[in-house]
Amino acid sequence: MVVGGDATGMSAASQARRRRGPEDLRITAFERGSFTSYSACGIPYWVGGEVPERDALIARTPEQHRERGIDLRLRTEVTEIDPVGRRVRSRELDTGAEQWTSYDQLVIATGAEPVRPALPGFGAPGVHGVQTLPEGAALLETLGRGVRDAVVVGGGYIGVEMAEAMLRRGLRVTLVHRSPEPMPTLDPQLGRLVGAAMTGLGVTMVPGAEADEVLLGPDGRPRAVRSTVGEHPADVVVLGLGVRPRTALARAAGLPLGAYGGLRTDPAMRVVDADGRPLDGIWAGGDCVEVINRVSGRHQHVALGTHANKHGLVIGTNLGGGRAAFPGVVGTAVTRICETEIARTGLNEREATAAGLRWTAAVIESTAQAGYLPAAAWMTVKLLAEQGTGRLLGAQIVGGAGSAKRIDVVAVALACGLTAEQLVHQDLAYAPPFSPVWDPVLVAARKLAALVEPLRVD
Amino acid sequence: MVVGGDATGMSAASQARRRRGPEDLRITAFERGSFTSYSACGIPYWVGGEVPERDALIARTPEQHRERGIDLRLRTEVTEIDPVGRRVRSRELDTGAEQWTSYDQLVIATGAEPVRPALPGFGAPGVHGVQTLPEGAALLETLGRGVRDAVVVGGGYIGVEMAEAMLRRGLRVTLVHRSPEPMPTLDPQLGRLVGAAMTGLGVTMVPGAEADEVLLGPDGRPRAVRSTVGEHPADVVVLGLGVRPRTALARAAGLPLGAYGGLRTDPAMRVVDADGRPLDGIWAGGDCVEVINRVSGRHQHVALGTHANKHGLVIGTNLGGGRAAFPGVVGTAVTRICETEIARTGLNEREATAAGLRWTAAVIESTAQAGYLPAAAWMTVKLLAEQGTGRLLGAQIVGGAGSAKRIDVVAVALACGLTAEQLVHQDLAYAPPFSPVWDPVLVAARKLAALVEPLRVD
Repeated sequence: MVVGGDATGMSAASQARRRRGPEDLRITAFERGSFTSYSACGIPYWVGGEVPERDALIARTPEQHRERGIDLRLRTEVTEIDPVGRRVRSRELDTGAEQWTSYDQLVIATGAEPVRPALPGFGAPGVHGVQTLPEGAALLETLGRGVRDAVVVGGGYIGVEMAEAMLRRGLRVTLVHRSPEPMPTLDPQLGRLVGAAMTGLGVTMVPGAEADEVLLGPDGRPRAVRSTVGEHPADVVVLGLGVRPRTALARAAGLPLGAYGGLRTDPAMRVVDADGRPLDGIWAGGDCVEVINRVSGRHQHVALGTHANKHGLVIGTNLGGGRAAFPGVVGTAVTRICETEIARTGLNEREATAAGLRWTAAVIESTAQAGYLPAAAWMTVKLLAEQGTGRLLGAQIVGGAGSAKRIDVVAVALACGLTAEQLVHQDLAYAPPFSPVWDPVLVAARKLAALVEPLRVD
Repeated sequence: MVVGGDATGMSAASQARRRRGPEDLRITAFERGSFTSYSACGIPYWVGGEVPERDALIARTPEQHRERGIDLRLRTEVTEIDPVGRRVRSRELDTGAEQWTSYDQLVIATGAEPVRPALPGFGAPGVHGVQTLPEGAALLETLGRGVRDAVVVGGGYIGVEMAEAMLRRGLRVTLVHRSPEPMPTLDPQLGRLVGAAMTGLGVTMVPGAEADEVLLGPDGRPRAVRSTVGEHPADVVVLGLGVRPRTALARAAGLPLGAYGGLRTDPAMRVVDADGRPLDGIWAGGDCVEVINRVSGRHQHVALGTHANKHGLVIGTNLGGGRAAFPGVVGTAVTRICETEIARTGLNEREATAAGLRWTAAVIESTAQAGYLPAAAWMTVKLLAEQGTGRLLGAQIVGGAGSAKRIDVVAVALACGLTAEQLVHQDLAYAPPFSPVWDPVLVAARKLAALVEPLRVD
């Protein structure tokens, strides 16, 4: 039985079905909404007009799941989990009908819920989240009203992506965000490059600001956002304030949660108790769980479709009689603001310090292609390594076309525990349209390797 | 003392100088040509018009090297190495003056020489190699004569790149090549995609053919190329038949060569004797050496600027009193034919079989960005793994924009000895403009992991 019909839930269901037929395994999936298996990450590109229509974002329709022998119940909310009685209570949203359903194995894939501060005006029409397809459609409806000024609240991934979407729709865009620089998962030095790129695109940046209130006009729709630093004209407000695990149901069922409010699991994606022991017959994955960061060894919460899909694959493989394990993340993420690409992996300075590590860092400027090609894009790379050992800890990239996906090289290097010196001699692809003769990642590794001091032994 | 003033030689000189001043270390470098430290790999883009002028390809001029206290002797050919007497004989090309110069440490960086068959017409004006700046300039001079038909001989990296350059110059292009498909460092299945792309660009492909003769017109310039399959009209002929180590000087000095005609070195880049023991005071790197492939454990010859630069860094660091080692290559290479990107790393089927490995392979088709973005580029990935262990052996990629540099993920995975299953769970960067939710490399790894059979134990 699956609770939540998106990436993790339906991947798990599909993978289990691939391995075990309907006569062998009955699969029931409950989904509160009307859609399954869609790319929430694609919503900014649909809103921005790059993806022409909503249905392009749907990887697999309810009908396709049902054809594969999955008993999918849409618009049906699970309201209670009874892990002792091995049953869940569900309610059909349209009829209000409730029922209990028994399970042998339970997959909790309830996802994440957006942070929505209970501030005046934040619930008004014209104030939009972009987490679900209906939310995307509602925002598009507002944009169709001929709005001019957009305020995006939040300077993280969603905020930056929605700023781009609003620019593409021809709006004047203001970004109100809390940190001194946008993209606080980067160190400020690199975040500043993102801020400069956004300013260059005409976005009015309002750093160091908290949005307090959405001021409404006579029609009950936004006319401005009031923040701790001023008032910002707004016909439409987009909220990108992050998400947290949606785990009220799990908590009510007595399942222990981690420091970030997510369920914790073992590598097989079985939910674990407070002592870390796997519970019998309860699995979880995706945005409602915490994952281990392989660099810090600590838990964190990462809401990202790519992990959700992998979790679903692992759960479905294990439920289907195979064996699979999720080894954790290294913390890779990527986005863009128009032509400027942004990527990070591993630990940034703040995270490395919080993990109790002594680190050093190198920043280099280069080009993503051979510098003598007139079209070569700028590219800044920052790398962190542990002092004493030289072990790589993290990387950040901001640059033009062809920059960001290079973060993957460091992501693999982190998973393998490479040192900065070992990274220098990786055999990366070189030809002038693809890289300078020294790939910028290797240039950064060279500089970093020279900064690593010997271990202090007292 | 450095013999050869290009990537390896001048990198070694510069790096040694960075660590040891002129009062501490005297550095003499002999270069037969008139240029130093230029990007030979950039010549196709200069000829094609993307790089506006020759001097853009020169990373560091002779004057810049001399300002750093390097005694650089241009147009001076080393004609003999006397390793017992620790001296070299050189000849000034312009005056014919000869002299012996003593050394304590010798760096052999003589590069590679193009394969030039001694066939009728191959030496005529209008038949061009593109290995050096003067050769590039000569080809541009021919192109300035209003030529219409170009025949490119050779279907490897240079051949494909020069076919693009000729297309960009508006010529009708014929590619005459020996293998059934172009790019024989790919398996034929992927090479076929390159061939199809070239045909789509209007290149007349002549596979399975050897060029026998350049037929000359009354002006002594090409009118056609005759191959084993026919005659191909040509006003200009470009040769891309590969290179081999330029090691006649080293051989004459009694230094042992490997199976590919290159010098062999230890990881410090010291030339080794026939028993693999490092010789005292003789270093070598770049296109004149053979390197170890970390996947097969065997030597190979790879003429590539990125390795040449790394070799120079290693030699210069060691000469400068530091410590550095080159761990070998995995065999990564990349190129493009207009919009189609081409990359490979590790071993292909033929190489894996030659290395005595039992392998399996998976090929997948995906897109380089989220498939619902209308601009998403096609992308085909092939991965090889060892049967029994699942250890990754190699990868090949052909696709549109954003495909090729993904090979680097596999390059690092190969260097780290990852299995296909371990690759599946790498934390690669995901956002719709950069990747489908399952990166194509991971999709291929999933498919491959399922094909790996258990080890046969008799």
